[in-house]
Formats: sequence, C-alpha cells, structure tokens
Amino acid sequence: MANIAKKVSWSSRGDEPAQGEGTPLLNGTGAARYSRQFSGGKLFHIGRLSTVDLEEEIDEEESVVSRPKEIPHNEKLLSLKYESLDYDNSENQLFLEEERRMSQMGFKCLEMSRWLVCALIGILTGLIACFIDIVVENLAGLKYQVIQQNIERFTETGGLSISLILWVLLNSAFVMVGSVIVAFFEPIAAGSGIPQIKCYLNGVKIPRVVRLKTLVVKVCGVICSVVGGLAVGKEGPMIHSGAVVAAGISQGRSTSLKRDFKIFEYFRRDTEKRDFVSAGAAAGVSAAFGAPVGGVLFSLEEGASFWNQMLTWRIFFASMISTFTLNFFMSIYHNKPGDFSNPGLINFGRFDSDSTEYYLYEIPLFIIMGAFGGLLGALFNVLNYWLTILRIRYIHRPCLQVMEAVLVAAVTATVSFTMIYFSDDCQPLGEDQLEEYPLQLFCADGEYNSMATAVFNTPERSVRSLFHSPAGSYNPVTLGIFTITYFFLACWTYGLTVSAGVFIPSLLIGAAWGRLFGILLASITPHNSIQTLADPGKYALIGAAAQLGGIVRMTLSLTVIMVEATGNVTYGLPIMLVLMTAKIVGDYFVEGLYDIHIKLQSVPFLHWDAPATSHSLTAREVMSSPVTCFNLVEKVGTIVDVLSNTSTNHNGFPVVSRLSDGCEPGKICGLILRSQLIVLLKHKVFVERARSRLNQRKLQLKDFRDAYPRFPPIQSIHVSQDERECMMDLTEFMNPTPYTVTQETSLPRVFKLFRALGLRHLIVVDSDNQVVGLVTRKDLARYHLGKHGLEELQLAQT
Amino acid sequence: MANIAKKVSWSSRGDEPAQGEGTPLLNGTGAARYSRQFSGGKLFHIGRLSTVDLEEEIDEEESVVSRPKEIPHNEKLLSLKYESLDYDNSENQLFLEEERRMSQMGFKCLEMSRWLVCALIGILTGLIACFIDIVVENLAGLKYQVIQQNIERFTETGGLSISLILWVLLNSAFVMVGSVIVAFFEPIAAGSGIPQIKCYLNGVKIPRVVRLKTLVVKVCGVICSVVGGLAVGKEGPMIHSGAVVAAGISQGRSTSLKRDFKIFEYFRRDTEKRDFVSAGAAAGVSAAFGAPVGGVLFSLEEGASFWNQMLTWRIFFASMISTFTLNFFMSIYHNKPGDFSNPGLINFGRFDSDSTEYYLYEIPLFIIMGAFGGLLGALFNVLNYWLTILRIRYIHRPCLQVMEAVLVAAVTATVSFTMIYFSDDCQPLGEDQLEEYPLQLFCADGEYNSMATAVFNTPERSVRSLFHSPAGSYNPVTLGIFTITYFFLACWTYGLTVSAGVFIPSLLIGAAWGRLFGILLASITPHNSIQTLADPGKYALIGAAAQLGGIVRMTLSLTVIMVEATGNVTYGLPIMLVLMTAKIVGDYFVEGLYDIHIKLQSVPFLHWDAPATSHSLTAREVMSSPVTCFNLVEKVGTIVDVLSNTSTNHNGFPVVSRLSDGCEPGKICGLILRSQLIVLLKHKVFVERARSRLNQRKLQLKDFRDAYPRFPPIQSIHVSQDERECMMDLTEFMNPTPYTVTQETSLPRVFKLFRALGLRHLIVVDSDNQVVGLVTRKDLARYHLGKHGLEELQLAQT
Repeated sequence: MANIAKKVSWSSRGDEPAQGEGTPLLNGTGAARYSRQFSGGKLFHIGRLSTVDLEEEIDEEESVVSRPKEIPHNEKLLSLKYESLDYDNSENQLFLEEERRMSQMGFKCLEMSRWLVCALIGILTGLIACFIDIVVENLAGLKYQVIQQNIERFTETGGLSISLILWVLLNSAFVMVGSVIVAFFEPIAAGSGIPQIKCYLNGVKIPRVVRLKTLVVKVCGVICSVVGGLAVGKEGPMIHSGAVVAAGISQGRSTSLKRDFKIFEYFRRDTEKRDFVSAGAAAGVSAAFGAPVGGVLFSLEEGASFWNQMLTWRIFFASMISTFTLNFFMSIYHNKPGDFSNPGLINFGRFDSDSTEYYLYEIPLFIIMGAFGGLLGALFNVLNYWLTILRIRYIHRPCLQVMEAVLVAAVTATVSFTMIYFSDDCQPLGEDQLEEYPLQLFCADGEYNSMATAVFNTPERSVRSLFHSPAGSYNPVTLGIFTITYFFLACWTYGLTVSAGVFIPSLLIGAAWGRLFGILLASITPHNSIQTLADPGKYALIGAAAQLGGIVRMTLSLTVIMVEATGNVTYGLPIMLVLMTAKIVGDYFVEGLYDIHIKLQSVPFLHWDAPATSHSLTAREVMSSPVTCFNLVEKVGTIVDVLSNTSTNHNGFPVVSRLSDGCEPGKICGLILRSQLIVLLKHKVFVERARSRLNQRKLQLKDFRDAYPRFPPIQSIHVSQDERECMMDLTEFMNPTPYTVTQETSLPRVFKLFRALGLRHLIVVDSDNQVVGLVTRKDLARYHLGKHGLEELQLAQT
Repeated sequence: MANIAKKVSWSSRGDEPAQGEGTPLLNGTGAARYSRQFSGGKLFHIGRLSTVDLEEEIDEEESVVSRPKEIPHNEKLLSLKYESLDYDNSENQLFLEEERRMSQMGFKCLEMSRWLVCALIGILTGLIACFIDIVVENLAGLKYQVIQQNIERFTETGGLSISLILWVLLNSAFVMVGSVIVAFFEPIAAGSGIPQIKCYLNGVKIPRVVRLKTLVVKVCGVICSVVGGLAVGKEGPMIHSGAVVAAGISQGRSTSLKRDFKIFEYFRRDTEKRDFVSAGAAAGVSAAFGAPVGGVLFSLEEGASFWNQMLTWRIFFASMISTFTLNFFMSIYHNKPGDFSNPGLINFGRFDSDSTEYYLYEIPLFIIMGAFGGLLGALFNVLNYWLTILRIRYIHRPCLQVMEAVLVAAVTATVSFTMIYFSDDCQPLGEDQLEEYPLQLFCADGEYNSMATAVFNTPERSVRSLFHSPAGSYNPVTLGIFTITYFFLACWTYGLTVSAGVFIPSLLIGAAWGRLFGILLASITPHNSIQTLADPGKYALIGAAAQLGGIVRMTLSLTVIMVEATGNVTYGLPIMLVLMTAKIVGDYFVEGLYDIHIKLQSVPFLHWDAPATSHSLTAREVMSSPVTCFNLVEKVGTIVDVLSNTSTNHNGFPVVSRLSDGCEPGKICGLILRSQLIVLLKHKVFVERARSRLNQRKLQLKDFRDAYPRFPPIQSIHVSQDERECMMDLTEFMNPTPYTVTQETSLPRVFKLFRALGLRHLIVVDSDNQVVGLVTRKDLARYHLGKHGLEELQLAQT
C-alpha cells in the first residue's frame, strides 16, 4: 500500500508547477534523509551540524530509501507538492511605506470595504443557494411527476419494468452530465469540498480550489447529482461555493474572465484572502443550514489560528446576510414575501413546543444512541476508506469515473424501485400530509406506499418527513430495510466523481434508525408511559445527530448547526451529548471522514497542538538543513539558477549579510519569497539598470499585487547572459523581520509559534544569529501520535 | 482630572506588593522619559542607543514631567501596578525533563483530569446559581409579601406612609448588609465582576480577583442587593463566581482554607489556570442566561488569544454541565423533576411560535430601535462615567460607600412607592396572570396596579412580564415614567459598593421603552395591520436587546446569549442587527460601560490589534531600555539587590552569557522570572552549597508549583552576608528559548506575536543577539488611536 498513486478526484491535474515548501534537503531523526546538493552558481549552503549530528548523518545516509516518485495517496506519506499560504505579512519596506502613507481615514475606508465585501459575499452566497434550491426543486419535481404518472399508468396494466427503465434512464442521464463536467473539466469540484476548504483554512494552498470555473462546475454538478437521485445532499457544496465566492469578490477581479475591476486591490494577498474565505465558508454553512452562528463556529473551528474580534464579526455579518438573502428570495419565490421560514437549504421543520421536551431518564438512551451512531459512523468511514483506496488504484481515468457514477445512479434507482415494489407498508393519506409525491402502487385507494416517502423523494424532504410524520407513519420493517440499503448506497456514493455532500445522507440514515429506535422503545415500554415516548420524531432527530457526528466528527459547530436548523434550543444538551459520544466512540476506531480523505491526499495538515509527547524534539531535529540563502545583494544568475532548480523548488530564502571574504556564513537579514523574486526578475530590478536609467519607475507593491496569485513560473522569464551578471538588491523587498527561533526550542514551542501566527517559513538561527535551518509546514505536520507513540511520516516530493 | 486618585471599588487594597512589569526605565517616543539608574551591586545595564536616539534622549530628559504618585484612576494613564499572567510556558530544563518522563498514558490521564475539572466547574457553578436563585426568591418573596400585606392593611385606613417606611427600612437593611461585607471585607467583589474577568482573561493579573473569600462575599452580596430591591441583576456576578470556582477547583487547594488536596498539581501555573478560568466564566454565563453557546463565545471574545479546539470543547462542556445542573436542581426544587425549563437564572419565557414572526418592513423599525438603544446606552455610560469620577474623588472611604448604597436603596424604594401611589393604571386581574404580587391599592376589586408589576417585583420577573403580558397590560404613561425613573436609578446604582450586575436593569429599561414603542406603533398604524403589530412583547425584546447592546457593546456573544435566553432562533437576525446598530451608534459617542471602568482603573488592557496607523513605530521605540540582565551564573547578592529594589520591581530578567572580561554586553541565553528567583533563593540553590553537600535534594518543578501563585516577597527571605557572596547557576531554571524580535520589527508585528502567544516579556535583540530592550504589556497597551491619530498614554508607577 506504500505506493498507490496516480490520480484522485481532488488532486491537481498536474498543470501547476509542483512546488515544495522551501528547502531541498530533508533532515529528520527517523525519516529517510535525502541529500541532493545543488551545484550550479555561486550559491552557498549554510549547514552547521554538531559532531554527533554528523555521525548520525553518515549512519543514516547509508540507509537512504528511495522515495516514491508519483503523487502519493497514502496516509503514511506527506506530499511536498502542497504549498502553505503566506498568512504572515511580508513587512518589507514597500509595505511599510504604504502603511505609513495611509491616513487614519484610509484605514477606515479599508475597514468599510471589508464589511462591504462581506455583505457581497453573503448576498451572492445566498443567491447561489437560492438558485440551486429552485433549480433542484423544479427539476426533481418534474422528474418525480413524470415517473409517478408513469408508475400509476403501469401499476394496473403490469408494465412496471418500463417505469423502472424510465427511472434508471432519467437518473443516469442527470448523473452522467454532472459526472462528465466534474471529471473532464474540474476534478477539484468533486465531493463536498469540505475537506478542501478545511485544508485551505488550515493554511494549505490547494491548487484551483477557489477558482470561478470550480464554482460553476460545482453548482451545476450538485444540481445534476441531487436531481439524479443519488444519495447525496446539496448542503456540503454550499460551503465550497461560499468560499469561492469570497475568494473571487475580495480580489476584485477574475483571472478566468480576464476582468480586473481595479477594486479591492489592497486585499490581494494571502492574509486578507484567507480571512475572506473563512467568511465565505461561514456564509455557505449559514445558507445551507440556516445556521449563521454555526457557520461562524465552523470557520473558527477549521480555520482560526488567531481569534480576531473584528474578523469574527465580519464573518458573522456575512453569515447573517447570507441566510437572510436566501430567506428573502425564497419567500418571494414561494409567493409569501416577508415570511422568513426558509433560513437554509435544509429545513428541519418546526419542532412544536409540546413535543420538544425530554426527560432525565431519556439522557442515557440518547447517549446509547450516540455510541451507536459513532459505531455506524466508524463503519461507514472504514468502508469508504477502502473504497477510496480501490478508486485511487483502479478508477483513475475520467471515463471510468463517469461510468462508475452512472452505475451508482442506476443501482440507486433500481434498489429504490425494488424496495418500493416489495414493500407492503401502506399508510392512509392524511389531510396534512407531508409527502409531495405519494405513490399508491399496490396500496388501497386513499393509501400510499410508505417506503416511497423515504426513497421517492429528495433526501431533504425524506429527512423532514422522518422528523415530523406522526407516530405510525412508518412501519419498523420499512425503516430497517431503508436504513441498511441507504447506508451502503451513501457509502458507495461518497467519493464518486460528482459534486455532492454527505451531510444529508448521514442525517437521513440516522433519522431512519433513530425513528426505528423510537418506535421499538415505545413498543417495549409499559402502555402508560407511551405518552411521553410517543414522538418518534424526537428520536429521529437524535439519531440523525448521532449518525452525522459519527461520520464527520465535528462537535461544537455541529451542535450549533443542528440546534439552529431545528430552530429550538431545548435539544442543545442532548445533541451535544450525542455528538460527543459519537465522536469519542468513533475516534476509537478511525478518524472522521473528512480527515481520512485529507490524509489520503497526503496534505500537510497542521492540527491544533504538537503531539503531546514531542517535547523531546527540538528545532534542531525538526528543521530542514542546509538552507539555500541569498546575499543582500545577489547575482541575478545565482537567483535564476536556484529558482530554476526543479529538484528543489524552494519558496522562501533567508537573506544573509556576508562578510567580504565570502566564506563565513552570514547573519540573518531577512526572508524573501520565490514569488517576490519572480516579480523582481520580471521587472528586471537590477542594480546596474537603476544606475544607468535613473528615471526608471520604482517597483511598487502594486506590481506584486497585480501578479498575485498566479505568479509566472521562472521558465517563462527570459534572462539574458548579460543580465545574469547583474546584481539584484533585495533590501527593499525582503521581509526584514522574519520570526526566528533557536535550535534548542522544543517542537511544541515551534509548533505553537508557527500555528498561532500562520507562518510559512520559520528560520532557525544559532546564538550568533546565523541561519542554520528552516522549519516549514511539512516539518511540523509529519510528526503525529500513532499507536506506538510518536511517529514520523515520510515525505514525498510530488 | 489628571490626578484623581485614592480608592476605587475594585482596586487592590494595597496589601499586595505593587510590582511593575519588568523594566524600570521607560522609553517612549512621545512620553515622558524617566531614568533612574540602579546603582547597587555589580549589575550591568545593556543600553544601546544610536546617536540619533541619544540626542532625542537628551532633548526629552529636559522635559521630564513628574508622574503621579498615587494609584491612578484615569483613562489617560496606564498603571504599572498590574502584572501580566505568564501564559507562555517557561520551558526550562526542569519542565522539559518532566514532560519527557511523562508517558503517553500520562498525557491521557492529564487530559481526562482536565475534563473532570471542567465537569466539576460546571456542577459547582450551577449549584451556586441554584443557591442564589432559591435564596433570592424566598427572601424577596417574604419581603414582598410582608409589604403587600402591610399596604393592603393601610390602603383603606390611610396610613400608607407606614408601609413606605417599612419598605424603605427593609430594603436599606438588606443593602446595608450587602454593602458592608463588600466595602469592609472584599472591595474587589463590588460590581458585576465582568470588567475584572475581562481583564483576567485578557491576561492581566487583578489582585484577589479569583479568591475564595471574594466568591463568598460576592454570593452573599448579590443576594442582599437583589433582595434589597436595588436596580440590579444577579446574572453578571455569576460570571465572576464561575471564574472563582474554576480557579479554585483547578488548583486542587485553597490557600484561604489552608487545605491542599494534593490533586491537579500539574495545573498550578498561569497557563492552565487561565484556561480553566475561561471555562468558569463560560459556565457562569451559561448558568446565568441558560446560554451554553453564548458562554463559550463570551469566553472566546474576551479571552482567547489562540483558539484551541480541545480547550473550546472543554469550555463548552463546562457550560453545558452548568446549565444542566441548574436546570436539574431547579426542577427538583419546583417539584417538577425532569422538566428542563429553567436553563438559566433569567428566563425570558417562551416566545410562542405564532408570535415569533417578523416582517421585512419591521427590520428598519428594529434598526431605528437599535440606534435609539445606542444613544440611550451612550447617555447611560457618560452619566455613569462622571458618577464614577465623582465617586473616586469623594466617596472613597468604606463607610461613605456603605452610606451611599443605603441612600440609593432608600431612594429606590421611595421612588417606587411614589410611582405606584400616583399611578392610576389599573388592569383587570386575569386568569393566567404573570404577576406574583399584584397590588390592588386604589384600584377597583378584581383589578391590580399595573405600575406595581414593574417595580414591586424582582427585576427578572418584571422583564418577563414586559415580554409576555398580553397587549394592553401596560398603559403607555406607566411605561414612559417607569423607563425614565428606572434609567436614572440603574445608572446611579451601577458602581455602588455592592455586588450586582447591570444586565437585567439594562434589559428592563429597554423592554419598557421597547414595549412603549410597540404600543405607540400599533396606535398610529391603520387598524387592519394592527394584527401583525399587536404583540408589544416582540418590541420589548428588541428594545431590551438594543438597550443592553448600547450599554455593554458586545455583539456576537450577546446575540447568541439573547437568542438562547429567548429559546427561539427566529429572532437571530433582528437581534444581531439591533446589537450592531446599537454598538455603532454608541461607539460614536463613548466606549462600552465595562471598557470605561477598565480604563478608569488604568489597566494595561490589550485590544485585538495594534492601532491601524502604528506601522511607523518599531520595537526600538516601543521597548523599555536599558534592561536589567543577569549572568548565567550570578552572584546571590546582586540578585537579592535587584529583587529588593522597590523602585523598579522587575518581574522578568533576560539571562546573558558574558565574556570573561565582563565589559562586553552578552548574548541572550534565556529569561528568568522574579517568582523563579524567589523560589531559588528560598531553597538556597547556590553553587557552593551543591558542591559541599552532594546529597542535597535537587530542586524540582514541584517546589515552584507549591509556591504558586502567592510567591513570598523578597523581603521575607533572609540571605546572610556569607550567602550574598555565593553564586547561583540559573541554567536549569531559566527559559532557554524566550521569543525575541529585532529592533526593526514594527509595532503591529510585535503586538501580534505578543498577543497571539499571550506573552509577558518579549526580548528585543540586535543583530548579534545581544539584549537591547524588553517589551512588556504596558509598552504595547499605551498606544491607542485617539481622535487626533496615534496617542500615547502616560505610565504611572502605582
């Protein structure tokens, strides 16, 4: 399993230059060392190892293992292909000059435009949610009507196989469209997008994840997959959509559309962009579940390194605007303007006051349900893990992926039809029935097939029906069969090359077994206490929470999301207990679904703290060394050579001041990024030129912003042989005050600094302030606490 | 106004040694410089100033202004008396050895005990809330019954002045007791305690704020003031109580009771303690308002430097347990076990589903109400500000404070009585009436005095009555008079030497004018639309939110608290909009009430970010310099002399390695704290002793923990003349990897590092790693954005 690679749904398509995180040479206590000295130019390496270290170095050099050459999709590897975001501002002279020029009024305007951007993010995210909802409702309605009429026509005459074929064809067609656009146009749009947004908020740059094209494919894809009747929801993708909207609006331009609106130019850097993306993700959650506070907490749980009050308010504002926009336009669409009862895409319906009570003796029952949810969730995750491994190994070509998606669509339709066909659970049609498309089938007149309510419906409606249908609407056998079938269908579906979420299917599975649990409980308790237990909807809600918690393993934000979606705070404590139990039980077996998929991508994801037992490691062991450094005034040829070296692909270079003799390693002066050097080279900011042409325009921050975020590769910049001999003065452009630590600093301390400030490069210096190493994200992410204590992941170049 | 000092309710009584934050000499660009060279011992100072700096230094020396000698109570000063918490771990050799010895199992146990502590915090906080609630309900019930009977007796016969006297006497007696215990036993227990907890969570050590004695006085005090009929609430003090409970339990001992349970010893340091205190504050909010999520957000808004997921969950857990405990015991107390309808001390009552609707056109109305709330809140704050200034100046002796409190109690009772007496707003007694003590007075039989519902009641019940009484229960005139009277009473009451909160009075004022607004609105709109506006309770809720927001200026956490207390998420958006408007309008005039009181104490409170326009400042201008440093192996005499120097009172000392000649300033090796030195001196850890007695017990981390948090003053440690000549090796005990920055680092960058990691000392070094300055909390807190750009606060030694 060490080298299963090739292609996976949300990896880069390979059209971006793979760039490592800053240092060519990896230095780890237990890991394989890999030393490839760069030999061109006058570059010098600073590597200071104590005698003991040198001996170790030699010992381990012998046992070098060859690292996999292909993209790793393995939880035991860490890919060097992913870059970090530059959340820490490069406070170079240009930046400081701009900040100092800016008046107090200027800062106020900036602050106002931040609020404006957040409002726009909220409005647009809400509108997208509206669009998805309306299109899905109409298309799905049309589909179900056509099939319903067809089934009704053939029920008497006995040609139901024609109905089955119609159903299968319709579903497959929709899913095929959805799958084709994802597989062939934008593979990153597959899935719910939550793992990708988690990574982005964590500080990892996932290629293409916040592009306009991704958004378009995502929105169309999710419509197709939901209308295609897959066991998916349209809620998860909203989070991704919100994030893309935020990344787009905040930059005031679209590279895809080649339009630059010349606004919000100040926000064109990773720090601001990531802040806005957190607002976008929150707005997405808010629109999906009608849960503005839950959205804020989601963003904070996943993304916040450093809690900032103003930022949190802006996120909250965006969330509120988003749910309000959705609510407002849906109320107009439903011809009930001013009726704010649709705060989110999923509406759990109103839990009435009289049924929202629970009793102390029910709490142990809830906890048992939580544990069961944790178990089932772990099973789901394990199955999906193996499935994903198989997919990575065998189903890696786009056409195969489309075929699998179509197959799943066909099977889903067939299984649903079979369940309805063989179900004999007939229920009387009530006055205030919640079923949109009641199928009579073989039931008596005035009755409908209860199984059809669960499967012949969009999953959102099925969830609502399970929550609110009066006691007795569902037969236990129906629920049992439905749970098992849907569980496997949903598990098979997650990870397909379609864009779709896992929230709603999880809720649906949980609601089904929860309701079953409630019915069974009512049947075994004495008759006089049935009164209090009569409401199976309550157990459906708890079951839904347990199942969802068991699969995704969020707690605080999920509790709040569930409470807000329910519209009732009474269930706060039970939901929290259930989610906690589900998490504890589930974590015992396997990680959460999103984390599994993140690990399978070998993303260098930073958790909250360094592993507890890592105090024995210091920066000396953790850092990469030797480090490629530049001089304050460096030869252009050297810079071009270093940047062109594809085997290393550094992204950050310490700048040092060297003594005139050039042998002594220099003291740290600053840090410069590959992207900055590229811009400098592009504008040919050479010392000689500045001398010869005094009227040359001085490089400004704007030039860097214009190039952001798609800096050209070094190969595209032509440097002549003459120019190679020129010198470049980095003083103005480097960050003169990078954070540094000493070699003795413990790993937890390094980790804390790195995580709290969202760093990309942390320079390790000795007591003379000379650079001895560089700590980057992958140096920290590779340590994790395994079954047998501290373990170290291997690194893979790709 | 520059030197109004002397005494204020929540300052230290002066029985703690006043200790500055680390450096004796203040160095600021615009501030007065104050250079007092320490001359004893062989201490050396490291001060490297460029030529330009030296000239500046000389220029400004001439314009030295004398600093106030007394405790400052002025928002233009910054007191040096407050210390920071050591949130950053001192990772010295002892600590690292302990961590490395600990197994993975050990860390798991530690984690479990953290959860256990949080559960205990929740339970105890809930129980305290129960106790307060039950005692207040019973005592207040008794009081009102006695007065009600008395009034009924004298209404006919015409001796109502006797009733008045009885009422005044009863109130004054309760308030006197409450005021005496606060003024004479524990002045820090005065007020709501929220400003103090805000400061503590911000990282400022407020003397005596988390002691057991404070808790006892607080609880008794709040009971007395609420029963005494003051315009106060019992909710704010719960936050303080929760914090004290947390600080107490997590340490596993009580210094006041002189009991050490020998448990949770690992948690005896500032880092862990502050984390637990945030859980305690959250549990307090949760018990007070039945708002567990609001509690978590409160703690995060006020305290979080660095968001940690596990910590957040533990805080959430404590909050949930707290509200559940309260709920459970209250349900038993009310003989309805299992009925979880009392999640908090204040219960807003259930807003029914049919009345919880609002319409789009109401949103502008809500925003107008928010603006009005902001205006009224600003007025409240300005009045209270001037009142506080007067109190600091004139009412600083405990007996004067008690007299003022009793006066307010008497006036409150008299005013209430007068209002009831002259009110002719009679309402019919309904079947399902919400009034506990209906006063008939001069009303006809079967009717009751409506004004009495508002003032002859605990404020919590009045709020509920304003929210839920059917339309027409209150006469507009009654509401108008009540609003005005109560506004001034509440304003006068806040800041008295009693322990009481401002939440409920604010809600009550707002509910009154909000309801009035609703009634007026209904009367001016056409008759057919009255249907939708008929519910004045909705407007009472919005008004309450607006008023509270205008006074305290919280947004995110307050929104969630209000939503949770209402038990209905529908009002989320209106409440948020209202709170935001109130904050924006209010902030235009004056700061929030808590911030005003914090500033009046001259607390070095760190906000979220450095002022926007402060990029022009660098660490060089901000830092204090020169710095008192120690050698790695230092003479005991020198250490004792430095620690004894009362004019400086350093708390952190960089440790440097000096060359043998002793003239060159040394390179930075580490950082040692005053508290650590004190323990070392107490245990006489001298190099000579270790040599002579090899079997001497090695100092352990336990010795430091035992001394925590009340380290003895240096004066109590006897060092003989012989011992003064001994040497002390600091290598093992200092933090060898303190965070450092260079002199060129900009203020925002220094601020971010300092704030994100919760530092106490940040060492500034030059390019050779030699110490040139020290940045502490006061160096950062003194810069703030005033009306005319960046302003600098003056520093005061006391």
